[in-house]
Formats: sequence, structure tokens, C-alpha cells
Amino acid sequence: MKRLVKIVSTMLLVGMLVSIFAIPAFAAGDPTGASYVTPTGTETLSDVATQANKAYYGANFTWVMITGFMVFFFQCGFAMVETGFCRGKNAAHTMTMNFMVFLIGAVGYFLVGFAIQFGGSGGAVGLGTGGGVLDAMLKIPGLGGIMGYKGFMLSGTYDAGVYALFFFQMVFMDTTVTIPTGSMAERVKYSAYVIIAFFISMILYPFFGNWVWGGGFLATLGSNFGLGHGVVDFAGSAVVHSMGGMIALSGAIVIGPRIGKFKKDGTARSFPGHNIPMAIIGTIILFFCWFSFNAGSTLNASDFRLAIVATNTMVAGAIGGVAAMFYMWIKYGKPDPSMTANGALAGLVAITAPCAFVNGISAFIIGLIAGILVCVAVKFVEDKMKIDDPVGAISVHCVNGVWGVIAVGLFADGQYGDGLNGVTGGVTGLFFGSASQLYAQLIAVGVLIVWGFGVSFVFFKVLDKFWGLRVSPEVELAGLDVPEMGVLAYPDTQMTTSELDYDSEDNMEIKQLARFKVKAK
Amino acid sequence: MKRLVKIVSTMLLVGMLVSIFAIPAFAAGDPTGASYVTPTGTETLSDVATQANKAYYGANFTWVMITGFMVFFFQCGFAMVETGFCRGKNAAHTMTMNFMVFLIGAVGYFLVGFAIQFGGSGGAVGLGTGGGVLDAMLKIPGLGGIMGYKGFMLSGTYDAGVYALFFFQMVFMDTTVTIPTGSMAERVKYSAYVIIAFFISMILYPFFGNWVWGGGFLATLGSNFGLGHGVVDFAGSAVVHSMGGMIALSGAIVIGPRIGKFKKDGTARSFPGHNIPMAIIGTIILFFCWFSFNAGSTLNASDFRLAIVATNTMVAGAIGGVAAMFYMWIKYGKPDPSMTANGALAGLVAITAPCAFVNGISAFIIGLIAGILVCVAVKFVEDKMKIDDPVGAISVHCVNGVWGVIAVGLFADGQYGDGLNGVTGGVTGLFFGSASQLYAQLIAVGVLIVWGFGVSFVFFKVLDKFWGLRVSPEVELAGLDVPEMGVLAYPDTQMTTSELDYDSEDNMEIKQLARFKVKAK
Amino acid sequence: MKRLVKIVSTMLLVGMLVSIFAIPAFAAGDPTGASYVTPTGTETLSDVATQANKAYYGANFTWVMITGFMVFFFQCGFAMVETGFCRGKNAAHTMTMNFMVFLIGAVGYFLVGFAIQFGGSGGAVGLGTGGGVLDAMLKIPGLGGIMGYKGFMLSGTYDAGVYALFFFQMVFMDTTVTIPTGSMAERVKYSAYVIIAFFISMILYPFFGNWVWGGGFLATLGSNFGLGHGVVDFAGSAVVHSMGGMIALSGAIVIGPRIGKFKKDGTARSFPGHNIPMAIIGTIILFFCWFSFNAGSTLNASDFRLAIVATNTMVAGAIGGVAAMFYMWIKYGKPDPSMTANGALAGLVAITAPCAFVNGISAFIIGLIAGILVCVAVKFVEDKMKIDDPVGAISVHCVNGVWGVIAVGLFADGQYGDGLNGVTGGVTGLFFGSASQLYAQLIAVGVLIVWGFGVSFVFFKVLDKFWGLRVSPEVELAGLDVPEMGVLAYPDTQMTTSELDYDSEDNMEIKQLARFKVKAK
Repeated sequence: MKRLVKIVSTMLLVGMLVSIFAIPAFAAGDPTGASYVTPTGTETLSDVATQANKAYYGANFTWVMITGFMVFFFQCGFAMVETGFCRGKNAAHTMTMNFMVFLIGAVGYFLVGFAIQFGGSGGAVGLGTGGGVLDAMLKIPGLGGIMGYKGFMLSGTYDAGVYALFFFQMVFMDTTVTIPTGSMAERVKYSAYVIIAFFISMILYPFFGNWVWGGGFLATLGSNFGLGHGVVDFAGSAVVHSMGGMIALSGAIVIGPRIGKFKKDGTARSFPGHNIPMAIIGTIILFFCWFSFNAGSTLNASDFRLAIVATNTMVAGAIGGVAAMFYMWIKYGKPDPSMTANGALAGLVAITAPCAFVNGISAFIIGLIAGILVCVAVKFVEDKMKIDDPVGAISVHCVNGVWGVIAVGLFADGQYGDGLNGVTGGVTGLFFGSASQLYAQLIAVGVLIVWGFGVSFVFFKVLDKFWGLRVSPEVELAGLDVPEMGVLAYPDTQMTTSELDYDSEDNMEIKQLARFKVKAK
Repeated sequence: MKRLVKIVSTMLLVGMLVSIFAIPAFAAGDPTGASYVTPTGTETLSDVATQANKAYYGANFTWVMITGFMVFFFQCGFAMVETGFCRGKNAAHTMTMNFMVFLIGAVGYFLVGFAIQFGGSGGAVGLGTGGGVLDAMLKIPGLGGIMGYKGFMLSGTYDAGVYALFFFQMVFMDTTVTIPTGSMAERVKYSAYVIIAFFISMILYPFFGNWVWGGGFLATLGSNFGLGHGVVDFAGSAVVHSMGGMIALSGAIVIGPRIGKFKKDGTARSFPGHNIPMAIIGTIILFFCWFSFNAGSTLNASDFRLAIVATNTMVAGAIGGVAAMFYMWIKYGKPDPSMTANGALAGLVAITAPCAFVNGISAFIIGLIAGILVCVAVKFVEDKMKIDDPVGAISVHCVNGVWGVIAVGLFADGQYGDGLNGVTGGVTGLFFGSASQLYAQLIAVGVLIVWGFGVSFVFFKVLDKFWGLRVSPEVELAGLDVPEMGVLAYPDTQMTTSELDYDSEDNMEIKQLARFKVKAK
Repeated sequence: MKRLVKIVSTMLLVGMLVSIFAIPAFAAGDPTGASYVTPTGTETLSDVATQANKAYYGANFTWVMITGFMVFFFQCGFAMVETGFCRGKNAAHTMTMNFMVFLIGAVGYFLVGFAIQFGGSGGAVGLGTGGGVLDAMLKIPGLGGIMGYKGFMLSGTYDAGVYALFFFQMVFMDTTVTIPTGSMAERVKYSAYVIIAFFISMILYPFFGNWVWGGGFLATLGSNFGLGHGVVDFAGSAVVHSMGGMIALSGAIVIGPRIGKFKKDGTARSFPGHNIPMAIIGTIILFFCWFSFNAGSTLNASDFRLAIVATNTMVAGAIGGVAAMFYMWIKYGKPDPSMTANGALAGLVAITAPCAFVNGISAFIIGLIAGILVCVAVKFVEDKMKIDDPVGAISVHCVNGVWGVIAVGLFADGQYGDGLNGVTGGVTGLFFGSASQLYAQLIAVGVLIVWGFGVSFVFFKVLDKFWGLRVSPEVELAGLDVPEMGVLAYPDTQMTTSELDYDSEDNMEIKQLARFKVKAK
């Protein structure tokens, strides 16, 4: 060891001495890069126009792709939040499921989903804006478009711009696929969720996405019926979060609560998450990615509104977390970590639709309300609706997604959105003088309930009947990791992981039983 | 299961066959995006100028916002480093506190801090440069500005550029708020740190930030008194890290050491961190974000010096870690993971002020010294000053922050900084022929000691008296998680987490007692 | 507590009211930033050209640096994957080693490696393209360049562009250094890997990197011998992954299997990873960084092919994971988390060379094959070759790296690469009509085997003889953390971490023995 240290130390010292002698050598080169920008003096206007175009699209591609990369990183945040909040005996299952939904979702969206959402509907320029017989068939006369039909497997679209759009839209879609894993965690069959992920990425999400973002009939409510700018959802409170939350709601209802979640008298037991630090880290990661999720949705680096979007996102998320923390502190005596995290996420979900259309103080108010709302909703979902939602996905994404959609119709201040969905003038909400935008937003909520909750409810019922949605009670009690995945999450310490399990009988712990069953296998 | 597999396999196979037939379809589109940049031939000079401006500001906004997003991610790194280095019984407390400081900090900076740092002082163009009665009152005649006064809650500043500046400055400020959580970890009251976070984000940081970065009197030392370029701190060795480190120092002194940290004879006990991998991952995340922290501080994508900044950051951080590793290895026989991590962080802190003004070899030397310095400082703080700093925040941020501030005055090579703070010519240090910059840097250190250490010391004393800074000994022994936060970090394995606790009596473990107390509650 | 809550609540309420009154104040400013882009009307063509140049290079620097930052983050992904898949008793060792290789690698590449890879070979414009005596000496007549020779410690290159290139190339190089830590984990001496990291970063990687990316003789196979475009490796299936995988292979062979890995009858035991969630998170992080790894390799924001690169990367990685998951599910009955992760990584490695030259459907096919290939390879390496590779580094990086190199010669569709390595026309593979590119790729594989596997094999043998490559059996059984690093990874729960260890005798657990030894120390 000493030898190594001596060798390296000597090397470093020699390096230092050499460096000092080498300093004069640093006169070479262009240390500020100033020479790069000097014109040659022989440029024509056409040359300069080409250079400006390269720079313009270069900045745009950079903005869209890098924010898109960061939206992908949402997967990491969701995986950590959900796994941290579940019990250790299901940690490998929950974590792997969150990874798997991205893999499946990407494949499903590549094969089918992207084409349905954008193909030929005018949403993706490179895919054209229809005009043929098929296009006419896929429009409801007097209402508008209902689906796209070109670009399956990106065929017929070998275009840099279309690929960029695909990438960016894929990572948004995938957020929707991953949200219901939270409300169905710790009891859903892995194989069932493979099917669910295909269904959401190929069918459920792309249709609704087409209606709002692909030029479909909800987008044209403004130009067709004079309802504001049609449904306005800047970065996805409706398309991504409410949709995911609606599916999370129907999923949690159909699959039912975890064994032991509700006592005989109907009151809920608390199942503490097995790794709170992991869940908080996941929340920080989600917050980090959310800036890109929202600001990247300008899809254009030269739309400088992106700075206001990012700041509104920060302000709403921060005050959402602060509000929830103090609400819990006053009401229950402790600044609950889980609800502080969920409060921040609620603020972020709520600002996602209005982020581009409101100012900083409105963002503050929207986030503040979201932070309170999520605390109330979590209690309501659990105590009144008797729904078991291990991570609070319904309260965060469904409730606050809807709140965000409505908030556009209230707080939009008319400073931004000129030309959006073919309507002139800025998007304006009720508090700034116009009610018609609010009507459009309420229609979006109605469609979300029918399509997001209704269709997924039927789908889950059918899937449950023909394939099975839930693992057996034995597997659930033993923990899903070994029976479903074939591995323990933490083999070194796993023997102690069923400490906090309860059975469905009041006041009787069945951890002994659960342990016995694991050993008996 | 087999059914599912068969279905999907078949689907994928069909997909493959379809794809191969679909290949000709790929002739469509623009696969390199070449058509985007072709001029139309009808552009006027004004059109091209507009396009060039869009591109120019588009690149700038992209650069500033994305690096800003990544600076936010610092929170994740700090949270993991501090939580990993603390004991498991305090993990939920330490982790949640690190998340909370961002939430509170963002709110405090939005409400008050940003206006004090930049409002009307000329720092933020969109907020004007003063000129009224208030502006005159807030300047010390013959010295310069001391605070801003416009833009509370971003009101009066509905401007994309100002919002961008707010975002970027907010995430820098937040680093300062989170640094003292490290030195006060495992014994500070959560509610006290809520107040501290408001105080730092609203008052302590913004004033000093105004003086250096907001056009205040430290920035104008050059133009007013001929001291180099005034205080030069490219990315915050002074404003962010020294300030945070000074607060960490006074906080650790006022709150006192953890129970059992020092034996009766005054020698220190080692309290091993409960999760070393988590702490190392946090360090890697901090390193990752530091590139953006430093290079993003050009605030301009067309200041190509940013590449040199990023490279200097990498070199100084790397050699800092290497130096500390070998120092520990030689001196104590093992390549200590904690000090390797702290060595890298020390190198990064030290290069943060000079990163733009020095060349690669100087960065190497600055980092090398930082790596040794942090090892010596950790021992000194613990053994000589008898201060208990669980994560080494004082040695990393305070000691090496000051080293970085001074290093500007030594190594700046005169190649960069023309026009900075209104002074012509590049920033030049002692080794390159000018002593006046070093004087300015030493004044900054003096002000840091008075404002950063002094004011925060008084604040902590007052807070301790009227609110209480520290949890009770019972809570500290039992672990802060349940009493303060209401949850265990790791409920599955928590029963074994007080294995390594010691009481304040020599040679007697009180883990039995600690356990008893937890159960007795 | 209540006091604090009341104070803050009141403050927030007052804030709300203030805000509502403040709303009119929001008329100020430029909320969309529209004014930034308006031409002054007095610009000359030269002014506009300068602005366009600033924007153009500003976008490029932004693209290259930010993707470079994210490639650095690979270190975090590798550290988590490898640590998660190892046993808890070696977790601090594996994690710290992964961090250390970056530190050492950066120093080694700064001191020596970069100069060898790029200096004077034409690879880095700022370093010139040779021409002197030294340059002539370092070329093989009739073949081409073999090494660079300028820019040691970045001296003589004080140039923003060269620093940018250094940064970007350094983070790529470092991936290669970290790959073999996986195959040698849980038994390699920390000090030995310090030496290995210097060797790879200074010698082994830079030479091969020069030949392919630095204008060396493999790059000029096309212009000199008419073999397609010479060796084509867009983002490093060969230079980075195959090279790392080859070293991983020779390292695993020389160091030998972990104690107890193979039974007396030669069949392998499974050593489950101690933290599956950590390994999956690491995989998600790698996936995240891979978009930047591949798309950033355009080194130019105005090469819009980057969007196709990123999308191909997503598609290949996703289907790779899906394919491996279903393969394991069919063959062994469970959707194995480890192999699902490795399948995704295999798809990513395989698409890394061809990502810019193929369309989406080809990417799908390449990834699909990679996902199957890695499952077969893992079994083959373990069962047939009797090599112990704890994390599957050989199967992922070596096998699929080679597959990716070959895939360029099969699937490249001729749409991209005009002018690459001085050859006109797009890169074209066998399936699109040209065999000559495939020959060049096969030559690359041959050189990889000789230089990557062969030279590193000799190096490991020599190192083993003169320094020692492996810890003692006692250390290995006890776990490397305390003997090598001086710390336990998880001191709170570490007493249970040797539950799953086996000795080299069949059917006898030696965990009692291992424990005894730990205690005896």
C-alpha cells in the first residue's frame, strides 16, 4: 500500500511542478472562444439566414430533447416514491413493475399509440393533416377529429422532427402508465399489469391525447363552438395526470383493498412505507423532472414564456408542500413526511395545466389550495370511499389534476396563448373576465370521467374476469417478491420484513402466520 | 402466464415482419432535418435578424434554465449525503428536513428574498436600477448599495427574463439553506429549522448576495476603490458555500455536540453513518449538479468560457477526491470512503469562485490543496475546536469556500472577466502579477465572518432562547424520527438501529436504555 | 408548535391578500419575452452574422456540455447497479470503488490519456493535425495514425473548444473504466483497481479511442482501403462498451470466481444481490443518461439526426428489456428483475454504434436480438466458460457491444454519415446493399479482441504477480468493507448480512464460520 501511495504522490508532485512550468504554454488557443463568432466578412444574406436557421432549430432541438430526457427520468421518481411507500416484502415487485411499465409503454406507443394520437390529425406536421377518405371517416361531423391513423412503428415518417415529437410524447404518455401502479401496488399481478401497460399506451391514453393535443374535438371546441381556446392543458394536468389518476381510481376500486387495510368496523389501518428516505428522494426527483415536464412543453426554445412556466412550477410545488406540512402539523401534531411530499406533488400536478397562462401569485394560490386539497382527499378516499390507495395516487393525480384543469378556467390572465388551437388572443379565465374557457375545461373533466374512469373501469372488470387482476391471499400475505418475481428485494435483512403486517381480523397480528407460510414454501 | 407470453411473442414477431415490409416506407420525410435550415430566398435582413435573435435568446434560455434545473437537483445530493452519514434512527428526520428546506426556502425567497437581493439594485435588468428616494436611502454614501427593494412576490416584474433570473438564483440560494442542516443534524428541532430556513432565505443570504452579485458595495469595490474587479465570486464559493459553511459553524457551536460524541477526556467518538452507499451516491449527484452550478453561472450560452468552467470543475473535484483518499490512506491506513467523498466536494467548493478565471493546471492545484485541506480541517474542527459536525459541512463548505475565494486572488490569469463589475481587463491574481484582486477577496472573507458567522450566531442564540434549537435528550437518544416526524425511516428493520449508540458516560453503552425508552412511549 | 403554525398561516394568508391586490402590478414587464427578438432596424449584415454565430455556437456548446454532464451521471447508474447486485458485506467497497474510478480516471485522462487520444491526430481541431517529425513517427506508413502526442494536462490548448472536447471525451472514457469493476466485484483489491483505473484511462482506452475516433488507422480504413467509411462507431459500442467488456472478461478470468460460486460438480450457485431496488434504480439512471450518451455524440446541436438517435436508443433499450423479460419468463417461469434490467442495458449497448445510421424499425430489431442475446450469454459465460461475472458485465457490454459494432454493417440504411471519416455518401450496411462496411466493422472486432482482451489480459497477469489483484480468502468471506475500506456499509443492520454466503464445499453453509472470523478480528 505504502508503495502505491508513494508512487502516486511522487507522480502528482512531479505533475504539479511540470504544470507550473507549463503555464506559459497556456498562451495558446482561444480561451474565451471569441474567435468563433467573428464574421468572415464574405457572408451573403443567404449564408447568414442558413446559420440563423441552424441555430434556431439547434436551440429548439436541444430544448425539446433534453427536457424530454428529463421527463423520462420521472420513471425513477415514481419508482422510488411507490417502492418507498410500500412494504419491504413487496419492494422488488413494486420497483420492477415501475421499470417494466416504461419498457412495455415504449413498445406499445411505438407500435400503435403514437399513430392514434398524432397520425394525420395535424398534430404532427411530418405526418400530414389528413384530407383523404380515412381522415373524413375518423371525424365526427360537426364535432371534430377522434383519432389519428398514420405512423404505426414510425413507418412513413422517417423525419427528424417526427422522431423528436415521438420521443417527447412517449415520455409524457409513460407517466400516465405508471400512475396506477401506485394505487394498485402490493396486490396486483405483475402479468396483469403487463397487459394494462399495453392497453394504456396503445389505446386509452392516445385517444384522449388526440382529442386535446392532437387537434381532436376537445381542442377544436374553441374554434368550433366559441368555448375559449377549446380545452387548454399546457403540460398535462388533464391528458397525463387526471387520466392516470382516473385509471388509478378505477383500478383501486376493482382490485379492492389490501388484506387487513380496513378493520371490521371499517376504519383504516396505516401500513407504513418500508423506506421513507427512498420515497422522499423519489419526490425530489419528480420535482426536478417537473421543471422539464412543464417548461419543455413549449416545444420551442424561443418561446421565452418557458421561464415563467418553470418558476410557476417551482412556486406552486413549494407552497403545496408547505401547506400540506402545516395542515398535517396543526391537525395531527406532526409534520408528516409522506403528506409533505404528496403536498408538493399535488401543487405540481395542479400547476401543470395552467403553468403557462398564469402569473407567479396565481401559481402560489393554486399550489396552496392543492396542498390542502390533497390532505383532505387522502382522508376522504380512505375513510369515506373506503378505497385503499397505498401511495395516494388518486388524491395527487386525479383530484389535483382535475383542480389544475379547472384552475386554467379561473386564473388564466390573458397574457399568453394567442393562436392556440386556432383562437386569437390570450387564454383568459373567470377571474380575469371570461367564463367561456371555464366551460371548455369542465367539458374536459366530464370526458375524463367517462373515458378515463369509465372505460378503464370496464377494462379492469373484464381483465379481472378473464385473466385475474390480483394475486392470491397467500401470496399477498407472504409478500409478492418471491412468488411473483422469484427474488427478495433485500435478501440480507428480509427475514424481519413482515413485522408490521396485519391480517384481516381485528387486533390480531398474523405475522407469525405469514412467516410460517414463507418458510413452508 | 404461457398464454400471455405466446400472445406477446406472436405480436412481436408479426411486428417484425410488418417492419421489414415497411422499410420502403422510410423513404418518406426528412431523416436528417436538412430542409429545416434552407433559406427561403425571400428573407429580408430584418427577418434574419429576428431569427438570429430568437436563436440567440433561445440558446441562452435553454442554457440557463436547464442548468438551473440541475442546480435544483443539488437538494437530492445533499439529502442523500447527510442522511447516509447520519444514524438510521434519525434518517427520516434528516431526509425530510433536507426536502423541507427547499420548500420553505422557495417560499421565503419568493415572498421577500429575491427582492432584497436584486430589486432595483441593477442586478435584475427587468427590475430597473433604482434612482428614486428609496434607492438613495438604501445606499451608503461613498460605499455603495446595501439592499434591493422591488419584486416582492415577483410583483411588478411580470417579465420572462426576471422569472428566469429568479429561478436560477433561487436554486443557488437554496444550497445555502441546506448546508447547515448537515452540521446540526441528529439533534436540531424540525420546527426550529423551519424558522431558520425562512430566516436564511429571506434575510441572511439575500443581503450578502446583493453585496456581491446584486451590484452592492462588495461588487463595486473595484470601480470605487480600485481593488481589482471588486469581490469576484464566479459561482458562489463565497455567496453560497462560505455563507452556508459559516452558518453551519455557528449553528454547530450554539447547538452543541450530540450526546456521547465527546468522551470525558475530550476525545471524539466516531458515529458511523448508517448508509455509506447512500452517502456516496449523494456525492456523485452533487458532482453531477456542480457542472451546471458552475458553468451555468455564465448565464449566457454564448460565453464559451463555460466549457473551461466545466472542465476546471471536473479536474478540481477529481483531484480533490484523489488527494483526500491518498492522504487518509497514508495517514490512517484505509482509503476512507467518507473523506474521499468530502475531498471531492472540497475540490468542487474551492473551484466554484475561481472556475472561470483560471486554467486547467491551476484548477488541478486548487483542487489538490482543497483535498488535503478538508482532511486537516475535519480533524481540527473535531479535535481542537471540539465541534460536532456530523457530515463535515464546516470543513467542506466554510474552510474550502474561503480557500476558493482567496484562490481567485492568487490564480486568476487575466484571460477572462473583461468588464466584470464595471472594470476593464481580465481578472488577475497575485501569481499573475496583481495583488489588488487579492485584497478585495480578503475583504469578502472578513464580511463573511461578520455577516455569515456573526449574525447567524446571534440569531441562533436568540432562537435557542425563545423557541429552542435542540430536541430533548430523551428524543435524541431514542432517535428523532418517531418523536419529531411520527414515522420510522425503515419500519421493517428499525429495531436494530440503535446498536451503535453510546451515552455520555465513558465506556457504557446505553442502547438498552434507549430501546427501553422507545418502547415505554 | 401551534404558535409557529399560527404565525406562518397568518403570514401566508396575508400574503394571499397582498397578492390579489398586487395583481394589477403584473401589467409591468414583458411576460412573453417578445421584445427580446425585435430587430433594432440598424443592424448590419455583419452584426446579424455575429449574432447568428453566437447563437449557433451557443446552441452547440449547450448541447455538448449538457449531454456531457449527463454522461458523467452514468457513474451513478453503474455504481447503483453494481452495488445493488453485490452482497451487502461488500457494498461500501463496490460503491466507493465505482466513485473512485471516476476520480482516478479524470486525473489519468487529464495527465496523459486525452493527449494520446486526440493530440495532433486531427481529432481535436485546437490541437492541430500534426505535420512535424513526431507526427510522422507516430504513423504506420501505408496504414495510418496510431497515437496523439499533444495536450498533456491540457497544456498548449487553452481553448474553449478543446476544453469542451476534453470534458465530453473524459466522461465517455470513464464508462470504460467502470465496466470491469462489475465483473471483478466482491474480490478485487481496492488498491489494485486504483492502478487499473490509471492504466485504462492513460493507455488502454486512449490508444483504441485514437484509432477509431481520433483519426487513427481504423478510422481511415475507408479512405485508405475502401472499406466503407472505415470503422464506424457512432457513440461507442466498440470504443467504450466492447472495450470495457473485453477488459471485464480478461479481468474476471485472471481474478477467478468468488469463493463458493461454483460447486464441486462445476454448477454455479446464485449469489443474490443485496438490494434489488437499488439495482433497478441504477438501470433507470443508465437508461436516462444513455439518451445523452448517444444523441450527444452528434457533438452538434444543428445535426438534427440527434432526434432519430435518441428515439432509436429508446426503442432498442425498451424492446431489449421486454425481450429479456419474456425470455426469462417462458424459460424459467418468472419475469426476472435482474435480467429484465440487463436486457434493457443490452439493447442500449447494441444500439450505441448504429443509433445514427438506422431507422426505428431496425433499432427495434437490433434491440430485440440484444435482449435475447444477453440471456443466452449470461448462461454461457457462467455454465460453459465457468466465469464468475457478478453483474453480467461481460454479457451486456462485451457481447452486445460486439453485436452493435456488427449491426452497423448490417442495418445502416445509407441516409446518414456523408463525409464521415472523409468518405462521401451515407453509411450503408449489408441489408441495404453494401458488404464493405461490414468488413471494416469485423476488423474493429478483431482489433478489440487483440488490444482490449489481449493486452488487458497480460496487464492483469503482471499486476496479479507483482501487486496482487485479489483480497485474501479471509477478507473475501468476512466481506471486503471493513478490511479494505474500514467501514461497514450499513452498520445498523450489518450483523445479518452474511446469511446467504456459502463456502466452497458443497452443501455446507459457512456463514457461522464467516461470522466467527469477523468477530474474532
